[in-house]
Amino acid sequence: MIRESSKMELRSRRIAILSPVAWRTPPRAYGAWETVASNITEGLVARGWKDVTLFATKESITSAKLVGFVERGYEEDKTQIRKVSECLHISKVMERADEFDLIHNNFDYLPLTYLPFIKTPMLTTIHGFSDEDIKRVYHDHKDTYYVSISDADRDSELPYLATVYNGIDLSNITYRDKGGDKLVCYGRVHPDKGYHLAIEVAQKSGIELILAGIIQDQRYFDTMLKPHFDDKLIKFIGPVNPVQRDALLKEAYAVLHLNTIPERFGLVMPEAMAAGVPVIAMDLGSCREVIADKQTGYLVNNVDEGVEAVGKIDSIDRKKCREHVEQNFTIDKMVERYEKVYEEIFRREAQKQKTSTGR
Amino acid sequence: MIRESSKMELRSRRIAILSPVAWRTPPRAYGAWETVASNITEGLVARGWKDVTLFATKESITSAKLVGFVERGYEEDKTQIRKVSECLHISKVMERADEFDLIHNNFDYLPLTYLPFIKTPMLTTIHGFSDEDIKRVYHDHKDTYYVSISDADRDSELPYLATVYNGIDLSNITYRDKGGDKLVCYGRVHPDKGYHLAIEVAQKSGIELILAGIIQDQRYFDTMLKPHFDDKLIKFIGPVNPVQRDALLKEAYAVLHLNTIPERFGLVMPEAMAAGVPVIAMDLGSCREVIADKQTGYLVNNVDEGVEAVGKIDSIDRKKCREHVEQNFTIDKMVERYEKVYEEIFRREAQKQKTSTGR
Repeated sequence: MIRESSKMELRSRRIAILSPVAWRTPPRAYGAWETVASNITEGLVARGWKDVTLFATKESITSAKLVGFVERGYEEDKTQIRKVSECLHISKVMERADEFDLIHNNFDYLPLTYLPFIKTPMLTTIHGFSDEDIKRVYHDHKDTYYVSISDADRDSELPYLATVYNGIDLSNITYRDKGGDKLVCYGRVHPDKGYHLAIEVAQKSGIELILAGIIQDQRYFDTMLKPHFDDKLIKFIGPVNPVQRDALLKEAYAVLHLNTIPERFGLVMPEAMAAGVPVIAMDLGSCREVIADKQTGYLVNNVDEGVEAVGKIDSIDRKKCREHVEQNFTIDKMVERYEKVYEEIFRREAQKQKTSTGR
Repeated sequence: MIRESSKMELRSRRIAILSPVAWRTPPRAYGAWETVASNITEGLVARGWKDVTLFATKESITSAKLVGFVERGYEEDKTQIRKVSECLHISKVMERADEFDLIHNNFDYLPLTYLPFIKTPMLTTIHGFSDEDIKRVYHDHKDTYYVSISDADRDSELPYLATVYNGIDLSNITYRDKGGDKLVCYGRVHPDKGYHLAIEVAQKSGIELILAGIIQDQRYFDTMLKPHFDDKLIKFIGPVNPVQRDALLKEAYAVLHLNTIPERFGLVMPEAMAAGVPVIAMDLGSCREVIADKQTGYLVNNVDEGVEAVGKIDSIDRKKCREHVEQNFTIDKMVERYEKVYEEIFRREAQKQKTSTGR
């Protein structure tokens, strides 16, 4: 009974979720951080949180309260200067900081520079260090709360409260007992994501490969990928929305995730596993935290090991892939972990309050 | 006596000058905003201000107090992400706002977003709207103090306290009674600055042209300018520091300033006139505020009028050019005007204080 009432008290706290404004929240197609911010928001509401406010673009969609200052995402409206939209959006949250018990920042480093001016605690989920140089801001703000999205993606100088893996929306993903007959590689088209290695694996395996995703590096696409497209063995279908992604995963015998730099988390992996599709992933960064090696896919170190893994896909139990996601990477699992983190922050803040008032 | 003592009181106020961190303050070569911020700082000290603090890169040079957080300008150290250096630099000023009676912002729009969190009044000199979109931030902050750098460069929706023309450092510029025999065009190599029009004027006049400046648009340089370089009629010498600029102005019969968009202020014009060099300027934006038409140069509307103006340069009194600058565009004149603006801000702030305390 006591635990139930303290949970009710926790869930009556006023939470502001700060989403980026590159895309709509949730995004129409690509937009990883906006996706996670949306999932956290909706997950909190689903778990009974009473006072959740999402700060996102004005056209965003949520069952929480929505506050927006920027009409549309700057990636969707190129008349906007990114920095202008960012600083307006962020400062509007900060101006209203007193209205919240906690600000959950999913928007990178710029919000940290407003920390000295607000009393409300802030939790920052670091969705990735886009460049070493941005750590200057993080290192300048060590007296705040951080969460990493994998144990691999941590900076040794920062105080983390926890790792909270991203959770995905299972309602968009159909589990299928039987797989397709193609290799699939999707996400964002960038050398980091190793689309060129996926092509090599497909060519060496002689199995059809479907590539999909938003093109983030046109030169890479034009020079390293496009020459291989033949509409037979190697095919590119562009970006996919959740419905198209589900259709794509139906075709998949395995998903190739041959990242060339340490993965921070890698949403593609749980998405694929949720559909029952085994994942062949490069053993860099978070991949070994997200897939269970030899049980839900294979960790590999190069193209040849990738080809070898393709040959062993049939020994993976697709049901097991799904269960692995259900147990670790659902929105509800993620929000359950965030609840614990929030609780810990409130505990620490109350402690600080006590100490400063001498009680 | 009373006026003297009130001036002393004014000059004992604590002023923070916020300079950009693209370049050192003052810059080694190019860096218009850093130049002006430096001139304001040194000018205040020269006029007897006792407590002036310059916020700039750590390696900056000033006779005021220097506070820096960023080692070097992000344009001089390309490992830096511009936004990271900007937000760190700016937030450090804001964190110390209470130590100052006035923050004089020479750093564009980002500082405005911290205004709701500080009590110290801020004066923003708008050195230019780099894009229409940045006005979103200005329009969101109308309850602060603005100065324009020319009457031409004003946004109709903003409340300006005054126009304060930029002042230049005359100690770097040698006045010469007799001019050289070449046309000169310098500043930054960008289509806005009409270097291509200067080449046309030189070719039609048959007079040698020396081009100088930092290349801000390589494609423009390569396609529109470079094909004309012949080391005889048209020559390009790269960026010039103040010493090189003085040598360059010695060569000058006239300076061509054939801007293709409205000029915001145009430091090149007073620099040239200070050396006794008449300026032929496009009649766009501030040019007609800076040069006295037919007395210190000519306002023109196209290349042909430019060629015509070259033919009439001998009727310009070089002494008059110098005097025009001494009377209007010295550092001391600029700072004298800023003193009046600061005084007005303190008057208004005191008034606000009275109103809010009901006295």
